[in-house]
Amino acid sequence: MKSFVLHPQLAKDTALIGRTSDCLLLLMKDARYPWLILVPEQEGLREMHELSEERLSRVSQTIKRLSLGLQTLTGAPKMNIAALGNMVPQLHIHIIARREEDASWPGPVWGVGAAEAYTDDELRVLVAALQEALLD
Amino acid sequence: MKSFVLHPQLAKDTALIGRTSDCLLLLMKDARYPWLILVPEQEGLREMHELSEERLSRVSQTIKRLSLGLQTLTGAPKMNIAALGNMVPQLHIHIIARREEDASWPGPVWGVGAAEAYTDDELRVLVAALQEALLD
Repeated sequence: MKSFVLHPQLAKDTALIGRTSDCLLLLMKDARYPWLILVPEQEGLREMHELSEERLSRVSQTIKRLSLGLQTLTGAPKMNIAALGNMVPQLHIHIIARREEDASWPGPVWGVGAAEAYTDDELRVLVAALQEALLD
Repeated sequence: MKSFVLHPQLAKDTALIGRTSDCLLLLMKDARYPWLILVPEQEGLREMHELSEERLSRVSQTIKRLSLGLQTLTGAPKMNIAALGNMVPQLHIHIIARREEDASWPGPVWGVGAAEAYTDDELRVLVAALQEALLD
């Protein structure tokens, strides 16, 4: 089996939170939204439907756990879940906490304005909180 | 258990294809994209993570089957899967076949331009083809 390599665009745009259920769990470096990205570590995946039945069930339960965990942690009233991949073909699932006062509400977050950077301290604290709350 | 009623906005924007795995399968009435909407028939759902483990696994396998089926039927190179619900709170999952020449590529489809109507004949033929290809 070919070894898994994270797509360079995802590597550039995110910070690593950790691993869960054979997926990389990443934080999008955009301080406008609490925004997780889950990447199944299997080389060559592009579509959700390419996951095996067994793997899909596990990934789906992981999405459920992460979505509930992020909503609980942030108190956000709405979660957005999506697998798009029109620009970055490697399968990755967005789990985003949304609020009525956020930068693109009620529209989707993709392609709206520019990402706002976290400070190094903010990023360190947030990643640690997410590791504590979301990893097994 | 409170009986399930489809949200009026979804009822207005879609045509019924049928039922599968205790979900309504709908076609978005927008001729710009082959665009399915799957609605679990359970009153009060807003988030994917509110589905029970068992129900989520079944819904996920249904999404897999529909995504693969729609991609096969249309020959589209990319599928987009999303549960957003920022405007219509009733849980509904988008399954959209995307092409590089479509109206919003490579961005997401939501909030871009205005829906283009199918003619009555187009809609009838398409719904019949989707029933044949996608229903159990």
